[in-house]
Amino acid sequence: MFIGIDLGGTNIAAGLVDESGKILASDSVPTGAERGSDAIISDMADLAKRIAEKNGYKISDIDAIGIGAPGTIDTDRGVVAYSNNIPFRNVPIAEKISGLLNIPVHIENDANAAAYGEYIATGAKAKSFVFITLGTGVGGGVVIDGKLMRGFNYAGAELGHCLLVLNGEACTCGNNGCWEAYASVTALIRQTKKAMDENPNSIMHEIAEKEGKVSGKTAFVAASRGDEAAKGVVDKYTEYVGAGIASIINVFQPEELVIGGGISKEGDNLLIPVQKIVSRMDYNKYMPKTKISIAKLYNDAGIIGAALIARK
Amino acid sequence: MFIGIDLGGTNIAAGLVDESGKILASDSVPTGAERGSDAIISDMADLAKRIAEKNGYKISDIDAIGIGAPGTIDTDRGVVAYSNNIPFRNVPIAEKISGLLNIPVHIENDANAAAYGEYIATGAKAKSFVFITLGTGVGGGVVIDGKLMRGFNYAGAELGHCLLVLNGEACTCGNNGCWEAYASVTALIRQTKKAMDENPNSIMHEIAEKEGKVSGKTAFVAASRGDEAAKGVVDKYTEYVGAGIASIINVFQPEELVIGGGISKEGDNLLIPVQKIVSRMDYNKYMPKTKISIAKLYNDAGIIGAALIARK
Repeated sequence: MFIGIDLGGTNIAAGLVDESGKILASDSVPTGAERGSDAIISDMADLAKRIAEKNGYKISDIDAIGIGAPGTIDTDRGVVAYSNNIPFRNVPIAEKISGLLNIPVHIENDANAAAYGEYIATGAKAKSFVFITLGTGVGGGVVIDGKLMRGFNYAGAELGHCLLVLNGEACTCGNNGCWEAYASVTALIRQTKKAMDENPNSIMHEIAEKEGKVSGKTAFVAASRGDEAAKGVVDKYTEYVGAGIASIINVFQPEELVIGGGISKEGDNLLIPVQKIVSRMDYNKYMPKTKISIAKLYNDAGIIGAALIARK
Repeated sequence: MFIGIDLGGTNIAAGLVDESGKILASDSVPTGAERGSDAIISDMADLAKRIAEKNGYKISDIDAIGIGAPGTIDTDRGVVAYSNNIPFRNVPIAEKISGLLNIPVHIENDANAAAYGEYIATGAKAKSFVFITLGTGVGGGVVIDGKLMRGFNYAGAELGHCLLVLNGEACTCGNNGCWEAYASVTALIRQTKKAMDENPNSIMHEIAEKEGKVSGKTAFVAASRGDEAAKGVVDKYTEYVGAGIASIINVFQPEELVIGGGISKEGDNLLIPVQKIVSRMDYNKYMPKTKISIAKLYNDAGIIGAALIARK
């Protein structure tokens, strides 16, 4: 039996995960990032213990804990080298939690953990596998021959920071023109707001008002009701997503590529236009093609992936 | 003892290569691509035999032949699945040459072969290694944990067809905005000609006249003599090269990245501005950095790499 923990900027989510990667029970607590690393580490250990005991296990019955955390993770030493969302710098999380609970702890970058979870969920048959997560930012994870590609310094697979438009839109990383600056939900919301400003009669206004805010769904919902301005937003956004995916396919030619994150809930409204753009921009015209699909595990990918990496 | 063959659109170049990857002798014949695959295959076999015998070996003394060829190569079956420069389609080159000479033959994509050659030349110590070739097009090869990353369909590592500018300059592949359309020598020549048209007093005109043509060197030579228009071309071109390299570093975070191809002869005039741009655009700010350098083997990389892959 394993425990997977998804350490996020807002919440710490944990799940009791069996050998096959199924979540048997889950629980969460607020992260309280401002409290510093010791309090967060202690909360993670408590949460792991509680979820085990609530479900009839002692913590010593748990084979290992896997943690997915944002930032650059030295997976060999179990250290968060650097994280932006949660102010960690060289924190030996694995050693500390392992010390508190006396079981093995493995820590992994959160997008990598989610990628590994989705890889297992697809059957783990692909020789190479790419996971893209479209959320607040754009993250990625790459599995080649069953192994996460982390880069020599553990900072690799930052697929959201590939260029889409040299000297284009400002990105949170300090550069301009990163794919993330066009294909994240944050970017979609910005694109939606701009179209709303330019189209006062669009039903996007009504939809946003009902929802209480402009969200990543606003344009997709309005477009499905025939709103022209919203269709324009969706067309452009799916072009951004698809063009970036095509770029990544030209690098890896992965057997499978899975799209996750908030926007992936749009399903075929996202997938079909993306597939069309990729089929146009894929350099490979004569060999078998990458299979592109929507994530299966959605929010559970991080917990399951972290647990399954710890299982290894 | 091995033989490496670099099958190009213009010439077939071959070398007798020892265990350590040193070329002991080399020779070449015109490709004559229009003659079709059987004539080319027969010439490759003859060239291999001749280079062995001229140097005191029988062809049966050769352990294996390695061939680097343009296009998509099914390395497991030894088949050129598709090639653009040389009109091959599903040609079982390895089997045919092996049949003619009765020794093992391995065939590999030419950029991959060159990448592998440069990887060995750097000491083969890097956990991950990326090779970029700036020539007529922009090619690439990626070595992870000592193994070429080919993609599930052998069509991977087309790094020149990552996006630099969505909907930008037309690329020979049929898309717009590929890195190759900005960073190839072909693109540099186009950029140079444009600047020459706009600057009739630039010394680029004089340099091109002396050389008999505008080449990839024209702007670099003029810039080194202080020509402002040429400096503008070099600054922009090195930005294109550097920005694309930064994108690729954000994907792989390779331990080493080597720049080859015609323009790599510019050495520090290319390398130093590229390093500056990469240091600005590299997403990784806190972990060790990718070492970027100029290719060591230059034109021999393909022959040596192909031979060393055959050695494996």
